Amino acid sequence: MNRLVGAELFFKCENLQKTGAFKARGALNAVLRCEGEHSNFITHSSGNHGAALAWAAGIAGSTATVIVPKDALPEKLESMRRYGARLKLCGSTLQDREGVLEQTRCEGEFKEIPPYDHFDIVAGQGTCAWELLGQVENLNQLWMPVGGGGLAAGSAIAGDGRVEIVCAEPELARDAHDSLRSGSRLPPYPPRTMADGLRTGLGEVNFQTLRHFGASVALATEQGISDATLLLWSCLNMIVEPSSAVVLAAMLENPGRAAGRVGVILSGGNVLPQFGAG
Amino acid sequence: MNRLVGAELFFKCENLQKTGAFKARGALNAVLRCEGEHSNFITHSSGNHGAALAWAAGIAGSTATVIVPKDALPEKLESMRRYGARLKLCGSTLQDREGVLEQTRCEGEFKEIPPYDHFDIVAGQGTCAWELLGQVENLNQLWMPVGGGGLAAGSAIAGDGRVEIVCAEPELARDAHDSLRSGSRLPPYPPRTMADGLRTGLGEVNFQTLRHFGASVALATEQGISDATLLLWSCLNMIVEPSSAVVLAAMLENPGRAAGRVGVILSGGNVLPQFGAG
Repeated sequence: MNRLVGAELFFKCENLQKTGAFKARGALNAVLRCEGEHSNFITHSSGNHGAALAWAAGIAGSTATVIVPKDALPEKLESMRRYGARLKLCGSTLQDREGVLEQTRCEGEFKEIPPYDHFDIVAGQGTCAWELLGQVENLNQLWMPVGGGGLAAGSAIAGDGRVEIVCAEPELARDAHDSLRSGSRLPPYPPRTMADGLRTGLGEVNFQTLRHFGASVALATEQGISDATLLLWSCLNMIVEPSSAVVLAAMLENPGRAAGRVGVILSGGNVLPQFGAG
Repeated sequence: MNRLVGAELFFKCENLQKTGAFKARGALNAVLRCEGEHSNFITHSSGNHGAALAWAAGIAGSTATVIVPKDALPEKLESMRRYGARLKLCGSTLQDREGVLEQTRCEGEFKEIPPYDHFDIVAGQGTCAWELLGQVENLNQLWMPVGGGGLAAGSAIAGDGRVEIVCAEPELARDAHDSLRSGSRLPPYPPRTMADGLRTGLGEVNFQTLRHFGASVALATEQGISDATLLLWSCLNMIVEPSSAVVLAAMLENPGRAAGRVGVILSGGNVLPQFGAG
C-alpha cells in the first residue's frame, strides 16, 4: 500500500474502537462532561454517532434517544439498538433530522449532544490524532475524512500546527472543500455519496478551526471510494467503511498529495460485507 | 461475543499476520532452517501455505513453486502471485496435488516444504500459541481450526499440557475428529467444505502429537461456519476466513464446550468479501 500511494502510511484503526468508530471518543467526553446534571440524551445521526452516544450514555447510566434517517444502513440501526439507543426515524435531509429532533425535545427533558459541531465532541474526537501523534514519531501529514468536521477539527487542534492536516471528502459532498477554498461556509450537498457518514455539512466551529490551522481538502470520486474500500479489505484484512476509505481514494486520485510519513485515521468499520460470488 | 459463547474469549489475530495467515510462521521457520543449502522450494497448497512459502522464500532470496488446485479461490491465487510464487495448477484431490508435485520435482532441484506434516512447520506454527500463552495469563482452553494439523499440533506442544487443546473441524471434513476418537488415522473426506483451508487430511506427525496431548475435536456445520464468519466480520470489524470461523461455529453449535478463559486462534483472513445488497 505504501508503494501504491508513494508515502509511508501509519493507520490509526478506529474501526476497532468501541462501537466501531472514532465517534465513541466525542460522545463519551460530552456525556462525562455533564455527568450528574443530565440523564436523558438526544441527538440525530446516520448511525455511528448514535451508537456512540448510546454506548456513552450506558456507561453513565443514562438514556440515549437518536433521530435517524429512515434510509440509514440496516446494520447501523441494528448497532444503535444493540447499544440501547431509543430510535426515532425521520427523512434523509438535515432539515428533516432537525425538525424531528426539535419536536422530540419538546416532549421531554433532554440534553442534546450534537454529532460534530460542539467543543466537547471536537475535544473527544481529537484524542484520536493525539494518540497517533504520540505513537508514531515525525509524521509529516495527518489524513482523515471530513463530514461534519469534528474529527478533522479535533485532529487539527491535536496537531497544533506541527503536522499538515489533509481532509478527504467525496466529490458528491464537497462542501468542506468549497468552504475552505472560498473562505465562507457553504451549505451541504444533497446526501448522495455512498460514504454515508460524510453526507452532513461542515459545522461552524469546525470550519473556523480548520481555517485557523490551514487544513486542506482532497476529493474522491464514488468509484474511487468503492475501489479503495475493497483494497483496504483485501490488503489489511480489516473491515473499514466507505466513509473511511475516502482517505485512500483521495490519495490515489490525487497522486503526490500524500508524501512522507503519513498518519491515516481509519475512522470506522460499520459496514457489513457479504460473501463474494466465489 | 463472550455472552453469546458463555466464555471469556481472547483472540489471536493471525488474519493480521504477514500473508494474512499463521502459515507464514511455519514456512519461514522451515525455509530458514535450510538456508544456504537450498534455493528452490516447492509445495502444494490451496493458498495460504503457498503464499507463506513464497513470502518466506523471498526473504531468503530463494524461489517458491506451488502446486495449487485449479478450484482454489481467485484471491488466494492472486495472493500467491503477489508474493512471487510460481504456480502450477492441478486437480482438487490430495492425490492430484501429490502427483503433479512428484512430476515437477523430477524436472529440477527442489526442496519440498510440506504444508503441515513436518517438524519444522509444526514448530513454526506453534509460535502462535506460544505467543498467546505469554500474552494472556491463566488460559483454560486453547481453540484453533484443524485441517492438516500443523497449527493444532504446534499449539499442543506450546501448551505442553498446561492448557486444554480443542480443535474445531467442519462436519464435512471430520477426519481429525474420527481419527482421534477411533485411535487410528483415517483418510480425508472429499473436499466439500466451504472452509477451503481445512479440506486436507490430518498428518501423521500431527495425529500422534494431538493424541499425545489429549486434544479433542468439536464439529461445525456448513451453515454454522457461514453464520460465524459473518458474525466475526460484524462484531470484530476484521476479515476472517471461513476456515477460521469454524472455531466460533463449533463453540456455538456445542454449547458449554468452551468454558473459562479461552484463547482463540483466528488463523487467517484470506477471503475477499463484497459490498452487501444495501
